[in-house]
Amino acid sequence: MGNNAGGAPERDTLARAKQVRLMLFDVDGVLTDGRLWYGPSGEALKAFSALDGHGIKLAMQSGITVALLSGRSSPAVTVRAAELGIPHVLQGVEDKLASFNQLRASLGIAAEETGFAGDELVDLPVLRRCGFACAPPQAHELVRGHVHYVTRAPAGGGAAREICDFLMSAQGTLDAAHAKYLA
Amino acid sequence: MGNNAGGAPERDTLARAKQVRLMLFDVDGVLTDGRLWYGPSGEALKAFSALDGHGIKLAMQSGITVALLSGRSSPAVTVRAAELGIPHVLQGVEDKLASFNQLRASLGIAAEETGFAGDELVDLPVLRRCGFACAPPQAHELVRGHVHYVTRAPAGGGAAREICDFLMSAQGTLDAAHAKYLA
Amino acid sequence: MGNNAGGAPERDTLARAKQVRLMLFDVDGVLTDGRLWYGPSGEALKAFSALDGHGIKLAMQSGITVALLSGRSSPAVTVRAAELGIPHVLQGVEDKLASFNQLRASLGIAAEETGFAGDELVDLPVLRRCGFACAPPQAHELVRGHVHYVTRAPAGGGAAREICDFLMSAQGTLDAAHAKYLA
Amino acid sequence: MGNNAGGAPERDTLARAKQVRLMLFDVDGVLTDGRLWYGPSGEALKAFSALDGHGIKLAMQSGITVALLSGRSSPAVTVRAAELGIPHVLQGVEDKLASFNQLRASLGIAAEETGFAGDELVDLPVLRRCGFACAPPQAHELVRGHVHYVTRAPAGGGAAREICDFLMSAQGTLDAAHAKYLA
Repeated sequence: MGNNAGGAPERDTLARAKQVRLMLFDVDGVLTDGRLWYGPSGEALKAFSALDGHGIKLAMQSGITVALLSGRSSPAVTVRAAELGIPHVLQGVEDKLASFNQLRASLGIAAEETGFAGDELVDLPVLRRCGFACAPPQAHELVRGHVHYVTRAPAGGGAAREICDFLMSAQGTLDAAHAKYLA
Repeated sequence: MGNNAGGAPERDTLARAKQVRLMLFDVDGVLTDGRLWYGPSGEALKAFSALDGHGIKLAMQSGITVALLSGRSSPAVTVRAAELGIPHVLQGVEDKLASFNQLRASLGIAAEETGFAGDELVDLPVLRRCGFACAPPQAHELVRGHVHYVTRAPAGGGAAREICDFLMSAQGTLDAAHAKYLA
Repeated sequence: MGNNAGGAPERDTLARAKQVRLMLFDVDGVLTDGRLWYGPSGEALKAFSALDGHGIKLAMQSGITVALLSGRSSPAVTVRAAELGIPHVLQGVEDKLASFNQLRASLGIAAEETGFAGDELVDLPVLRRCGFACAPPQAHELVRGHVHYVTRAPAGGGAAREICDFLMSAQGTLDAAHAKYLA
Repeated sequence: MGNNAGGAPERDTLARAKQVRLMLFDVDGVLTDGRLWYGPSGEALKAFSALDGHGIKLAMQSGITVALLSGRSSPAVTVRAAELGIPHVLQGVEDKLASFNQLRASLGIAAEETGFAGDELVDLPVLRRCGFACAPPQAHELVRGHVHYVTRAPAGGGAAREICDFLMSAQGTLDAAHAKYLA
């Protein structure tokens, strides 16, 4: 697959983004920089990006359904997702492909109408089957070689915003969303 | 508008900075690097910059009124602002333009006598109306395209200090402030 | 010794990695970026890397025994190691060489069948005696001059994953491990 | 004054370092990266560097007296300093020059036998009077222009270690300290 980081998006990548109705994000290494903050009794903190949060809200307002799909489980994710109004928060998922297919089926959305952003080997089964596969630059190199779009912005620091902006741009909804703030 | 990051400040930018009597700062992505630190029950920490704090204190000593203008709300901001002696701390603000105009009116300060540093779309209405609009380099690109001054220092790591130094330099108060420490 | 950061691994380095049956990691400055997070009553947090955790699990699945060897002691390390299933967690170690030799003896593994990743002077006695000595790029320069392999990835941000991948590649187990995720 | 960052140390800088019997470090922006971590009730965490800690211990073992000199006050600093065995911990200091002169007098150490590492305007009075003035690269530019030595390593990530190594190298004690770990 093509990997267009730093260059102009290929026509194929835009066409793929245009079809996305459901966008899923992995959490650690995508919505965070992949660092796991442990205190004496286990994971204590997660660091999300304000830029990413705004992007996810704008994407949802534009009509895209957003979901989180994470192998780990953390109350910090639950709280942050609720704050952003993300309707589907799948945590502690052992088989991401099964959860992905189940969610798609329940929503009646075809694989080619889904996007997924992941950074790890466990994300590959979904990344290889969704319509628009994304990874941040810090993703494992095997993963970067199997996605349609590698972000310029780092994980946990704008990667998800860049993806949301790209989706909205491909679908022709970004300019109208921005115009509201330029009135 | 011009964007002078990395180059010499344009004459217009200096003239704008010279007029500023009230400087407002957004919090997340300006006074912090935009990361939101969540624990099990929500936001737990904010990371401010010691350099920024000193700069804000110097600017206030030079006669500039400082205010915070944030869409979010956090006790960490309240504590830090009190420590620095910032007199106006507007948090949980849904309509930044309304709050901006209200604060200006109460202080009797014209729009062209105000500066604002922001990084997000929601900051655009104020950025486009204040006299001296600033953004850190990590701001959304749409925002960077609508400000008079993009800092070289990163958000949460000296961006606010750079702005305060720039204001004081434009207003001819920086050298005297520095001279006290060189006696 | 050779230092192959950024270049092709020397044949000698690959041969050394091929023999490793026991891989030891220092914690601070190797599995973390070396920052020590203190609260009012002492160390409060450690930041591990999700990428590193996956790499350690894959290496163990491939048959390599993993151990931690740290001069400090922290419950966060105990919790994280348990989560990953690391069988040997040696903390608060004053004499790393003695602990290293004791562990080797108890497992019946020769020095040339061990690897160690460290970043500090106190790691040198083990680094100079193990078969495959590694350091992250942030290690003390004296340490970097005495290892077989300096990672490209930073400490606490993929260095351990890079080492695990390198070991598995040298031992011919990496492709099969990856293939499972590409089915 | 000269500023030798990135180049060979000037002969004058080495001569200055050779005389240092008392080395003082500012905390925020020198032993940390200058970020202040606030929770709901104020400052909650400080992030120190493991590399710096080892360097300070080696410098003390070589006969140099180490002190901390900070305008802020934090229990995290007290705990960390005690762990490292730093004998003089001056916190909450309003007039750094007065505290510096008082400590020197009590120890019978001349100004030219002292070093200080600082990053802010408030550090200038001491930096301009001590024998060996240091700053990290993130220091305020006015400060960087008034020191003998700007470190290559960042504040809170090796700057203090670099200074300790430089002092010991200038005083001819570094090689012997390193040799112990190469036995």
